[in-house]
Amino acid sequence: MKYSQLFGKATKDKNKDTKFASHYYLTKGGFIRESTAGRYYFLPLGWRVHEKIKRVIKEEMDRAGAQEMITPILHPLELWKETNRTNSAGFELTTLEDRRGAQFALGGTAEEMFVDLVRRFQLSYRDLPFNVYQFSTKFRDELRSRGGLLRVREFTMKDAYSFHADENDFKREYDLMAKTYSKIFERLGLKTLMVAADNGYIGGEYCHEFQTECELGEGRFFVCADKSYAAHEDVAEFKLNEINPNEEIKKFEIIDQPEWVQTMADNVKHYDKDESHFLKNVVYKTDRSELIIVTIRGDLDVNPIKLQHLLNKQPNLTVHQLEDASEEDLNKIGTKTGYVHSWGHENVIYVADDSLRTVRNFIGGQKEKTTDSFNVNYGRDFKHEIEGDVAMAQDGFLAKDGQGKLIEKHGIEVGNIFQLGYHYTKLMSGATFTDQDGQEKPYYMGCYGIGIGRTMAAIIEKHHDEKGIIWPDVVAPFHAHLVSLDGAEKQGQNVYQQLSEVGVEVLWDDRDESAGAKFADADLIGIPVRLVVSNRTKDKVEYKHRTKTETELLEVEEVIKRLKTNG
Amino acid sequence: MKYSQLFGKATKDKNKDTKFASHYYLTKGGFIRESTAGRYYFLPLGWRVHEKIKRVIKEEMDRAGAQEMITPILHPLELWKETNRTNSAGFELTTLEDRRGAQFALGGTAEEMFVDLVRRFQLSYRDLPFNVYQFSTKFRDELRSRGGLLRVREFTMKDAYSFHADENDFKREYDLMAKTYSKIFERLGLKTLMVAADNGYIGGEYCHEFQTECELGEGRFFVCADKSYAAHEDVAEFKLNEINPNEEIKKFEIIDQPEWVQTMADNVKHYDKDESHFLKNVVYKTDRSELIIVTIRGDLDVNPIKLQHLLNKQPNLTVHQLEDASEEDLNKIGTKTGYVHSWGHENVIYVADDSLRTVRNFIGGQKEKTTDSFNVNYGRDFKHEIEGDVAMAQDGFLAKDGQGKLIEKHGIEVGNIFQLGYHYTKLMSGATFTDQDGQEKPYYMGCYGIGIGRTMAAIIEKHHDEKGIIWPDVVAPFHAHLVSLDGAEKQGQNVYQQLSEVGVEVLWDDRDESAGAKFADADLIGIPVRLVVSNRTKDKVEYKHRTKTETELLEVEEVIKRLKTNG
Repeated sequence: MKYSQLFGKATKDKNKDTKFASHYYLTKGGFIRESTAGRYYFLPLGWRVHEKIKRVIKEEMDRAGAQEMITPILHPLELWKETNRTNSAGFELTTLEDRRGAQFALGGTAEEMFVDLVRRFQLSYRDLPFNVYQFSTKFRDELRSRGGLLRVREFTMKDAYSFHADENDFKREYDLMAKTYSKIFERLGLKTLMVAADNGYIGGEYCHEFQTECELGEGRFFVCADKSYAAHEDVAEFKLNEINPNEEIKKFEIIDQPEWVQTMADNVKHYDKDESHFLKNVVYKTDRSELIIVTIRGDLDVNPIKLQHLLNKQPNLTVHQLEDASEEDLNKIGTKTGYVHSWGHENVIYVADDSLRTVRNFIGGQKEKTTDSFNVNYGRDFKHEIEGDVAMAQDGFLAKDGQGKLIEKHGIEVGNIFQLGYHYTKLMSGATFTDQDGQEKPYYMGCYGIGIGRTMAAIIEKHHDEKGIIWPDVVAPFHAHLVSLDGAEKQGQNVYQQLSEVGVEVLWDDRDESAGAKFADADLIGIPVRLVVSNRTKDKVEYKHRTKTETELLEVEEVIKRLKTNG
Repeated sequence: MKYSQLFGKATKDKNKDTKFASHYYLTKGGFIRESTAGRYYFLPLGWRVHEKIKRVIKEEMDRAGAQEMITPILHPLELWKETNRTNSAGFELTTLEDRRGAQFALGGTAEEMFVDLVRRFQLSYRDLPFNVYQFSTKFRDELRSRGGLLRVREFTMKDAYSFHADENDFKREYDLMAKTYSKIFERLGLKTLMVAADNGYIGGEYCHEFQTECELGEGRFFVCADKSYAAHEDVAEFKLNEINPNEEIKKFEIIDQPEWVQTMADNVKHYDKDESHFLKNVVYKTDRSELIIVTIRGDLDVNPIKLQHLLNKQPNLTVHQLEDASEEDLNKIGTKTGYVHSWGHENVIYVADDSLRTVRNFIGGQKEKTTDSFNVNYGRDFKHEIEGDVAMAQDGFLAKDGQGKLIEKHGIEVGNIFQLGYHYTKLMSGATFTDQDGQEKPYYMGCYGIGIGRTMAAIIEKHHDEKGIIWPDVVAPFHAHLVSLDGAEKQGQNVYQQLSEVGVEVLWDDRDESAGAKFADADLIGIPVRLVVSNRTKDKVEYKHRTKTETELLEVEEVIKRLKTNG
């Protein structure tokens, strides 16, 4: 392709209003352009990369026996109602009505669509298992989009759905998909870590994210040194340390306290004890306006995802969303910030974190204007019906199963795999197959996603320098970037033709620009090999790899040989 | 691929509730399934065909120098407002709002999106021309979907948009795209005819459809024997014949008429003259409730598309849609069916078809209960301000430029190409480039579409027999359909492996089914070559082409040789 004819060239725009290299270089290099916030055009150069990423994913999915197909983008809304997801995913779901009044959701994920399709067939155990996938446009009505392709409102996702006769067969597939994903990301130049995560509104019992480590990434997770444990902050567990196991249990008292003692810092100062000795109360409000008071050890933070899961395990609670309670909410139960009691408020739901059992003789719990509780012992002085682990892990905490300390990491989530089990097939009637024993049984399911644009951005976050992108060979938009200088147009044409004829993908910068401008654009665009012809190179070609500084003067045949080996 | 593992097998369903072979065989064969009316799943088998069609289109578009990219599916509604298309395309346009209140249209075609993108770049004549295209999901809120993939509400379209410095350069591209389209359809096994057509809500001055002849097709068009003229019924012109050029012009009279003379047939009977001697009045209503009375020669029908164009050429009229006037509409102007006057009604817009000049001494025009007008001569007795060709062509009419008689045909429109000219770039501010003379000038544009699913259906309409589909090699889901019979599973495995290893795409029916059932499914699915191994074929393979009855017993090597030549 001649660069002069390419639609979407590099711009000279120096305005770097993003901290993300991927966003800056993709825009400046002519790969993408924003339409409205979070919705992107992929220009010809960017689309070539996008399609090469898709090809790698397709090759590995097919190798694993998955079958590509496609579902409509408009999902009948009644399917999402069947699984109650209009509630749980409602905030990210866009709906619409056609002119005949039929209601649809813009697909953000397609579990219902696949289950609805599969239940129309009369399948038996002989037809199982199968794993079907698609590359299709997905929609997420995010409140904020950020970081260019890292978090968008519309994107191409590879989503796969597997159907099994039982859990054992599913587990085989889950392992296979985990291996397939590692292989895909490895081929794309991304080292990933498989991290236990929260299943959010997808449902099911467990899932894993594929995180590629990146300081700027949105994902926060914890690993132990040998990586035998890796979990997203949403679900990360840790071993609670005992604070004062040998201390004698003392008598509960109400003690005087100066009025200036309000915050945790005030307490630490006043009593000269570290935060772990104090009771902390954190208040949340559910989407049905229930107030939740979590009592937790003072040095720990509440993990709202763990909290939500714990609440949803209770017989009479269904929580789709949790938010911080407001001052107004506190007033309604007769209190205010700094004065929430660990017991005794009415019309609230109390939750006790497991950490309350690791401290003897807590301070705090029932704070009045000039008094507080002293020597409070959980189980003796107060106890909540709802108990569990709702604490957020922290860097340096001990791993639960003795693998040493947890290390905090940040990363970009490029893929995820979900156990769905019977979640959908029990909610959607008729989603059954005939088993060997003649019985109709629900399918056991899993699902598996990769966002193409985010993967593309992640590749750049990991493969760039101060001049621009450094594409891994497999996804580079072209194999070689040919630059013809100072009137060497004819030599350029020759080399371009020779390379093209043998199937080397060449971007030929044939513009009437300075050597400096052309080299800068070549570095920005990041094609692995730069070739230069000029009056000085005669019938040879100057060959330089994007990552190296030295150049070599080579015969065209040698250039072809090297490029055919790489490509 | 083993057929036992394929998701979406052929069904035994014999319920043939469609007249379209494509719809019946695609559904029965396991290629597609309907989600809601007009929205289809492509199952793995169908998706393979879909992607092969795309590949052919991509190859030819790339060869023509076009560049693939992608636009978002959600188009900012303000762009469609900028070009007034929320009015003109409003009835097929689906709109929605996100949770921040931003309004979008679900893209049905993407002119505004491409112009909006291009105008963000500061391009000069040096960057021109370019032709950018995408394969993306398009939405049409059709009132009725019909014929399976032939008319749907959601589909993949290849849409291309070209940008030029001037009309001459555009015309070169238009010719190139016409040739490219013919080549694409020829490769896909479709003979097409390039037919002048109406540009509808796309805008621009002219366009052509690529029609593949088909008795059941929705498209109706006219060609002359040497095909030098071909036009869709919407725009087809013809040469008006003079009815009675030598008749003496007689005196206008009001004559008595029996009350039973109401319809055209009554008139023909009563006066013993053929329909052409009578005046006919046809009433329409516009989307702004204006009533239009068209006066036309009695043997002709009104062409509402021609009428709409004629009306839109008038200085004070803008008509987005025309419908037949109702009895109630007629009552409002004091008349009823059969009694509409060719002149004299108030609050209506009269239009005269050119055919009124081909008859002397018309009968009709101002019909009362027991009288009618006689010897009415257009121009002498009445004349309308709006005059033009608004008549529908008919089979056997003469072509306008002396190419003989018009022949009526039916077909499926598989592609279309549009001149857009300055239509969009003048309506959308800033859609300009810097020309050689330093001036900012609007782009001259064209656009070019192909619907993938409809093309797939058209291929089947042209390539099937009573047993099923007969895929052309280039789009067949697999190269060979291997059937293993009566316990020849091991031979099947061997042949399957040998073929797969050399890159032949094989669907192996390894199920435990009868020979009859397997052969019937093979014929239905329509893969070009059927291979059979059984205990009787020993180490050879029975080879049969889908279109032939004779079989041959061949060595595997010979089978491979033949398949590699086809594929």
